[in-house]
Amino acid sequence: MKLVVVGLGEMGASLALAMKRGRGKIEIVGVDNDERTMNQAVQLGIIDKMTTDLQSAVINADLIVLATPTKVIIDYLTQLARLTLKQTVVVTDTGSTKVQVMQAARELTTAGINFVGGHAMAGTQKAGVTAADEKLYDEVPYFLISTQPKLIETTQRLLAPLQAKFTTITAVKHDQMMAQLSDLPHIVAAALVNSTAQTLQAEPELPQYAAGGFKDTTRIGGADPKMWTDVLMTNRPATLSALQHYQAQIAAMISVLENGDAAGINAFFTSSRAIRAKFEE
Amino acid sequence: MKLVVVGLGEMGASLALAMKRGRGKIEIVGVDNDERTMNQAVQLGIIDKMTTDLQSAVINADLIVLATPTKVIIDYLTQLARLTLKQTVVVTDTGSTKVQVMQAARELTTAGINFVGGHAMAGTQKAGVTAADEKLYDEVPYFLISTQPKLIETTQRLLAPLQAKFTTITAVKHDQMMAQLSDLPHIVAAALVNSTAQTLQAEPELPQYAAGGFKDTTRIGGADPKMWTDVLMTNRPATLSALQHYQAQIAAMISVLENGDAAGINAFFTSSRAIRAKFEE
Repeated sequence: MKLVVVGLGEMGASLALAMKRGRGKIEIVGVDNDERTMNQAVQLGIIDKMTTDLQSAVINADLIVLATPTKVIIDYLTQLARLTLKQTVVVTDTGSTKVQVMQAARELTTAGINFVGGHAMAGTQKAGVTAADEKLYDEVPYFLISTQPKLIETTQRLLAPLQAKFTTITAVKHDQMMAQLSDLPHIVAAALVNSTAQTLQAEPELPQYAAGGFKDTTRIGGADPKMWTDVLMTNRPATLSALQHYQAQIAAMISVLENGDAAGINAFFTSSRAIRAKFEE
Repeated sequence: MKLVVVGLGEMGASLALAMKRGRGKIEIVGVDNDERTMNQAVQLGIIDKMTTDLQSAVINADLIVLATPTKVIIDYLTQLARLTLKQTVVVTDTGSTKVQVMQAARELTTAGINFVGGHAMAGTQKAGVTAADEKLYDEVPYFLISTQPKLIETTQRLLAPLQAKFTTITAVKHDQMMAQLSDLPHIVAAALVNSTAQTLQAEPELPQYAAGGFKDTTRIGGADPKMWTDVLMTNRPATLSALQHYQAQIAAMISVLENGDAAGINAFFTSSRAIRAKFEE
């Protein structure tokens, strides 16, 4: 099997490593816009060959995995629609939002090429090719998006060495869940951090008084701005809807506090405690 | 020295244990509304005597520490103002909000009794007398509130066995910092949890897809409703102000997302990352 991985960050490089655990013979070609990253990937034994020429990489490929940021995945989908591909190839991606990706893949699927949207709930705070981990996908929920059951089956068979927990889902449902579980928490945490700016200016010693609660709640407020701009820009409708529901919760709490409504405060935290208990840790 | 600890939860019981590490002779009397808690405290060697009769407990006391929830501290301050106390006694508390406590202590101080507001940035997820830990206060920031430098000095000397990092602060400044660092994060986390209710109803499998970011950000959304109702009700003005500033951040982000303003999203997360870096972990 010939596998092409486009984008050798943590997700793509880990996928390449994990795919090497399969029983069959595999040749892995890596494509990245950073020459140094590709060299490292070869040296670390993550890929067998490297190239920046997409056409030469994808020719005869059986599986093409686009593992770049979502905006770049969309660009590659447009490029792939104009290249010569093996008729049986499966193209998939690892982007964290799916509605825009599925739309961008239409040109490709109209040309008769198989595309399956993909997104694994994997990834750490680390980044780059040196963060590659062959166990990154082990037992991790891995969403696949396609209306063709046979294609889902083929993709699962091709990606079997990842040992992920594959689940089919619609792009819309996927993006709503991600908005709620990932995009919204990042906004909430960053807004909390930003709202300390004024107090911090008046009290520069503020950080030393921050306890575990503040630190947990704001941890992802330190996330990479470039990455999160990309994620939010490609999942705007779902994120906006989640954010507006959230804003209503904040507005309700302001009103409850203004009224000194102790029962209202208690109900707010009682509801939260009951729902939070459904989530682990 | 005779020490009276009122309220034998984690804070009070740990304080009693830590005070036993001092060099001088100390007699510790525990007061709690729960007989079982007091019995446990005696059995665990945390206190020397127990009683529910406040007057008999506080007579001849050199130091009285009120370690109950803030609302109850306020009740005790009113009660103490009507009891016979040693003229040199120092009364202090461990409540997490201070403006209301300092106001409630006025009757006592008008009667010539020394009162110093206190609040240590200590405490774990555990609760109750069995969570007592003699090291709980070690090296922890411990705020003291009083306009009398000599009284602060005396209090620090009396509480020296705690090995805490004592800092003086005004009640207003203290409550603003707590609103920002503790009250607001609890509201933000609970609002985020509550805002998942709708999605959770449609997708009961949602929790299994929640990753570390969601879990960190919502961890304190599982906090005790009774305790947090008490905290917020006693620190309403500062919490409301912090929450309103926070709401403005959320509103700004909604507008940025509505406009598809990528530079605006980037600026939001760039600011957050820079500020978050000033806080540890």
